[in-house]
Amino acid sequence: MLESLKREVLEANQALPEYNLVTFTWGNASGYDRDSELMVIKPSGVTYGDLTLEDMVVVNGNGDVVEGSLSPSSDTATHLYLYHAFPEISGIVHTHSPWATSWSQSGKDLPALGTTHADYFHGAVPCTREMRKEEVETDYEMETGKVIAETFKTNHLAPAAIPAVLVHGHAPFTWGTSPREALYHAVVLEETAKMAAYTNMIQPSPAEISPHLLDKHFLRKHGSNAYYGQSGKENKV
Amino acid sequence: MLESLKREVLEANQALPEYNLVTFTWGNASGYDRDSELMVIKPSGVTYGDLTLEDMVVVNGNGDVVEGSLSPSSDTATHLYLYHAFPEISGIVHTHSPWATSWSQSGKDLPALGTTHADYFHGAVPCTREMRKEEVETDYEMETGKVIAETFKTNHLAPAAIPAVLVHGHAPFTWGTSPREALYHAVVLEETAKMAAYTNMIQPSPAEISPHLLDKHFLRKHGSNAYYGQSGKENKV
Amino acid sequence: MLESLKREVLEANQALPEYNLVTFTWGNASGYDRDSELMVIKPSGVTYGDLTLEDMVVVNGNGDVVEGSLSPSSDTATHLYLYHAFPEISGIVHTHSPWATSWSQSGKDLPALGTTHADYFHGAVPCTREMRKEEVETDYEMETGKVIAETFKTNHLAPAAIPAVLVHGHAPFTWGTSPREALYHAVVLEETAKMAAYTNMIQPSPAEISPHLLDKHFLRKHGSNAYYGQSGKENKV
Amino acid sequence: MLESLKREVLEANQALPEYNLVTFTWGNASGYDRDSELMVIKPSGVTYGDLTLEDMVVVNGNGDVVEGSLSPSSDTATHLYLYHAFPEISGIVHTHSPWATSWSQSGKDLPALGTTHADYFHGAVPCTREMRKEEVETDYEMETGKVIAETFKTNHLAPAAIPAVLVHGHAPFTWGTSPREALYHAVVLEETAKMAAYTNMIQPSPAEISPHLLDKHFLRKHGSNAYYGQSGKENKV
Repeated sequence: MLESLKREVLEANQALPEYNLVTFTWGNASGYDRDSELMVIKPSGVTYGDLTLEDMVVVNGNGDVVEGSLSPSSDTATHLYLYHAFPEISGIVHTHSPWATSWSQSGKDLPALGTTHADYFHGAVPCTREMRKEEVETDYEMETGKVIAETFKTNHLAPAAIPAVLVHGHAPFTWGTSPREALYHAVVLEETAKMAAYTNMIQPSPAEISPHLLDKHFLRKHGSNAYYGQSGKENKV
Repeated sequence: MLESLKREVLEANQALPEYNLVTFTWGNASGYDRDSELMVIKPSGVTYGDLTLEDMVVVNGNGDVVEGSLSPSSDTATHLYLYHAFPEISGIVHTHSPWATSWSQSGKDLPALGTTHADYFHGAVPCTREMRKEEVETDYEMETGKVIAETFKTNHLAPAAIPAVLVHGHAPFTWGTSPREALYHAVVLEETAKMAAYTNMIQPSPAEISPHLLDKHFLRKHGSNAYYGQSGKENKV
Repeated sequence: MLESLKREVLEANQALPEYNLVTFTWGNASGYDRDSELMVIKPSGVTYGDLTLEDMVVVNGNGDVVEGSLSPSSDTATHLYLYHAFPEISGIVHTHSPWATSWSQSGKDLPALGTTHADYFHGAVPCTREMRKEEVETDYEMETGKVIAETFKTNHLAPAAIPAVLVHGHAPFTWGTSPREALYHAVVLEETAKMAAYTNMIQPSPAEISPHLLDKHFLRKHGSNAYYGQSGKENKV
Repeated sequence: MLESLKREVLEANQALPEYNLVTFTWGNASGYDRDSELMVIKPSGVTYGDLTLEDMVVVNGNGDVVEGSLSPSSDTATHLYLYHAFPEISGIVHTHSPWATSWSQSGKDLPALGTTHADYFHGAVPCTREMRKEEVETDYEMETGKVIAETFKTNHLAPAAIPAVLVHGHAPFTWGTSPREALYHAVVLEETAKMAAYTNMIQPSPAEISPHLLDKHFLRKHGSNAYYGQSGKENKV
């Protein structure tokens, strides 16, 4: 069942330590099949080096396991909520990568300080509000997805234009049209989060780049007028 | 004698450079056998790559060598004091890992700024008070253990809930139910110490996470209601 | 055509990830043949590990491809402008290396804080002014080259004495008498940018080194009285 | 001639990139034979990976080459001055390692903020005063040695108790009773310089450790009452 998607999800998970995005088992990747409304996700607490195709867990929209002998990631309900809230995405990556997690811990949005950021994120990457006591104590993982969706709705942000979020006091989630693209965005987010912190070190409260520079860089890589990369190739990632 | 524990202690010591926790010989791991009241510990000043099973030193409760031809770690008396003071632990790791050591040098507790911290430490990791002249000059290593135990007692902290300490002006100690778990906590401590410093860079004096988020993350990994990982497996590490 | 230059350009591009100067495809190296007025440059969006000699793109002074089946780097017009404006250079490297990019994001010149800097840059590495809306929206890449040339002209800087620039809100460009020398300067720039930020951490607003120390170090490596390295060898790089 | 010393000097130079202390050719190690009053030093501008035993340069007290076909390090006169000024040393290492160099650029002494520092340096590692115009312009490298010796004399510091210095606006030199020990101290200096900067990040203007803790740690590793390591072994390094 969903062998091709399972392989993509497996590979995205295996890539997390290669890109230095995770310590121990602190991260997970998933993929979503919109036809069958099934999600493939990493099993909980299993080391990346030990993962096999058979370990991938398939769950339905309620989070019930429909294939696989292991328990799915404890963050399963967050992933599912995001796939339902953001119809344009088919892959999600969650990590505790150090720089993006530190921005999450600071409670601040990650500002667009340069063109590296603008090449992938069409504006600041938002940090959610703090989660309330009742949200944490009841259906915590589902509520995490809900507060992410709320952040995008309240701020009129498009998930395809800003494929990442910082969960307050927790860590980042990134997404894309495939597990591979979500992974790509996780790497970009960590790199831009690092450079934004470095910039803070050099110049406290640095200015965001101009709207025209933000637009220029985002749109030369994305959309119908993109001209970066080789035509006919997947240019964004 | 204690061959299985010796192997665990050897492996925990060998893992210290693999996890980038030590420079040269700046760290040691030990294990404690509560039945025989004997401790296995790294020999002093020996490089990790050169360590063999036979090099492991077995000492009794007074720190006398009962097996092994090498001198035990110069921190032996600290380890022994902690095994006596904290009956729930059977493994200890001491390193001068850069970020945790820098927090020790700052004299500040390591605050719980995010869920990565909360997944393993149920509150701030305390920094001890400065050691007094007479404590340093007489039985220094034993007194180091004593000031750690005092810190936990004075602040009503449970060693199982906060398996780490920062010794003022010195460096961290971590512990667990095995040498392997103590090693795991040493890696976690370094990672959370790093991210707390990064968070400080981004947002001076950042807020600690809420008590409900702290409880949620610690308790979904620990205790009778834990649901992280695969049931029946060792979920915490 | 230009096989030797192509090889040099290929090798400079392949070295970018080895020196940790790039993530994904975030950088490019080029070489210029002043006799034929042709430039060899990396193709756009191709991974360094996949590059072959045949992939190198040859373009003329208008940026038209005269050899090669792939599209040239999206930064082609910037490279060409610089070769025209700075007749003494024959190699250019552009990266988004983290520390130099962070200085670019800060909008500040990189000051000469030590002799490591003075060994290669005879003064501060300038940051350009912000680019104007119309410059960004029309012929952006060419205008990027223009603002770099303007920065050197306005500040009476010699491209051979300061073989690097920080583009405001974007990232660095470095150059030299060959692609290999441009690469060398990209490594040096990243290292000095890192150390300048570290120095800021230790001592806010640190002083620049004295003019005599700046001259001494630059001139013992460059010019007719240089005495660093082995005589008869390429000493600067 | 001096084959054993040459091998030690070769190995210390080769270890510089392994310990991440150098970029390109930015560092050199030397050894001194007090009987013959000859110094063995790295040739100038040669890459560490290319060095052979035959490349080592032997110079006399005037810096004249007495064996070897290559030019000696441009820092030769600094090394020679230090061997003459500090009779207790027989090995010197100079690098531009990032953290120690950043402290040199800050113009500040490296304070003893923890026991890692105290294990090797019996007090702050001093930064020299700025060098004067005439010192820089005439016999610069010799004058560099002179200002180091002046720093130790003026502040009543013992080179054996503090085997390192930060040259203002330049970079560190470390030394020891052998090239290997000088190398060891270069690694320690970089690590303590890093942790002191990290500590500054966490707690601006952190306090130095108490005199009793400084004494305790330095003296448990050095001198007649040392008890760290295995008796009869070289315990300090």
